[in-house]
Amino acid sequence: MRVGILGSGLMGGKLGTIFARAGHEVVFSYARTKQKLEKLAREAKGKARAGTPAEAARDADALLLAVHWSRVDDVLKQAGDVSGKTIVSCSLPMNADDTDLVVAHTSSGAEELAKKVPGARVVAAFGTVPSEVLFDVFAARRKVTKPSLLYCGDESRSKKVAAQLIGDVGFDPVDAGPLRIARYTEPFTLLIARLAYEGKRGPELAYRFEWFGE
Amino acid sequence: MRVGILGSGLMGGKLGTIFARAGHEVVFSYARTKQKLEKLAREAKGKARAGTPAEAARDADALLLAVHWSRVDDVLKQAGDVSGKTIVSCSLPMNADDTDLVVAHTSSGAEELAKKVPGARVVAAFGTVPSEVLFDVFAARRKVTKPSLLYCGDESRSKKVAAQLIGDVGFDPVDAGPLRIARYTEPFTLLIARLAYEGKRGPELAYRFEWFGE
Repeated sequence: MRVGILGSGLMGGKLGTIFARAGHEVVFSYARTKQKLEKLAREAKGKARAGTPAEAARDADALLLAVHWSRVDDVLKQAGDVSGKTIVSCSLPMNADDTDLVVAHTSSGAEELAKKVPGARVVAAFGTVPSEVLFDVFAARRKVTKPSLLYCGDESRSKKVAAQLIGDVGFDPVDAGPLRIARYTEPFTLLIARLAYEGKRGPELAYRFEWFGE
Repeated sequence: MRVGILGSGLMGGKLGTIFARAGHEVVFSYARTKQKLEKLAREAKGKARAGTPAEAARDADALLLAVHWSRVDDVLKQAGDVSGKTIVSCSLPMNADDTDLVVAHTSSGAEELAKKVPGARVVAAFGTVPSEVLFDVFAARRKVTKPSLLYCGDESRSKKVAAQLIGDVGFDPVDAGPLRIARYTEPFTLLIARLAYEGKRGPELAYRFEWFGE
C-alpha cells in the first residue's frame, strides 16, 4: 500500500518507518523542517520519501493523521482534497497544554474530524499506545501472543485497511465498533498516557485484551 | 478482612463470593429479595452472611459499592454513616437506560461519589471488567501471568486495601493514580462493555497491560 504520513512527529515518524519496513510505500510530511522528513525517509530504509502533505495525500491508499489537534485544520488544508481517502487518525483532541481532552462524552475527536472531511472515511487507530512502544511491538511481531490495538470506524473497507496496517506493526487488531466508540477510546488513551508517563515502569506500554474460555 | 457488599447483583454477588472464598468475612446486602442474599451467602461457602446495608457497613474494613447509579443515594442512606470507610466502587454513572455515562470529562462517577461521602475514602476499582470473567480469573489466580485491574483513589491506605482485594480475585492491581483518573477509567469501561457484549468473542473479557523492555 501507499501510505501518506500527515504529521511526522513521534507517532507519525515511528509508524511511517515501521510501515516502510513492512513493505509499504511511505511519504513523510508535515514536520518542523524538511531536513527531518528527509532523515526519516532515509533511515526508514524502505520505499520512503519526504514530501508535502499534498504529495503524501496524492494516490495514497491510507493517510495517517498524527498531528496535534491544534494543527488538524492546517494539515488538512495543505493536504487538499481527501474525498474517498481512508484516514487513520491517532490525533487526540487535546488542548494546547496537552492536559485535557477538548471534546468528550457527547462527541469525540474522531467524530469531529469526520465532520470536517465528510467525503473521507475516518478510522480511529494507533492513538491508544505510546509511540515509545511501537518498535518493541514491531520487533516482537513474530510472537504468537501479540498486544491488542483498538480501532473504530463506520466504513468496513477502510477498517480493513486500518486492520492490515495495525497487523503490520505487530498488533492484534481489535475492532471496537463504529466511530462514536472513539468517545471511549480517547479517554482510554489518557489512561494509557497516565500509566506510561507517570508510573514507574516506563512508557513502553501496550495492552492486550484476553478472552477467557476461548 | 471484613467486606460489606452494597448491591449484590451480578458484580457484587460474584465479587462477594470470591472475597469469601479468598478467606474474607463477607456481608451481602441490597438485592431484590432477602432470599437472594441468603442464597448468595450459603453458596459462597465461606464466612458469608446476608444482612442490611447498615449491617454490611458496620465494622467493615471495606465496602464494595456495586449498585446501579440510580440506586447510589438510596443504598448509601440505608448504609448509614460511612465516615472513614474504604469504599471500593464499581458503580458507573450510567443513565437509566444503561446506554451512556451521565457524568464525564469534567468529573466522574467516582468523584461525584466522593463528594456525596466526604468522610469516606473512595477507590474506584472492579468497574472495568465484566462480571462474567471474574470466576475465570479467580480460577486462574495461581498462574504467573494475570490480567490487570485498574484502580484509582486519593488515599494510600484505602488504595492498599483495594489492591489486596484485587489481588485476591486473581488480578494484577494497576494503580492508575488519583480518583480523578476515573474520568478515563469510566469511559474505558464502556469500551470493555462494547467488546464484551457486542463482539463475537463473548463477555469473558479481561485486559492486561504489558510493559515491554522490563
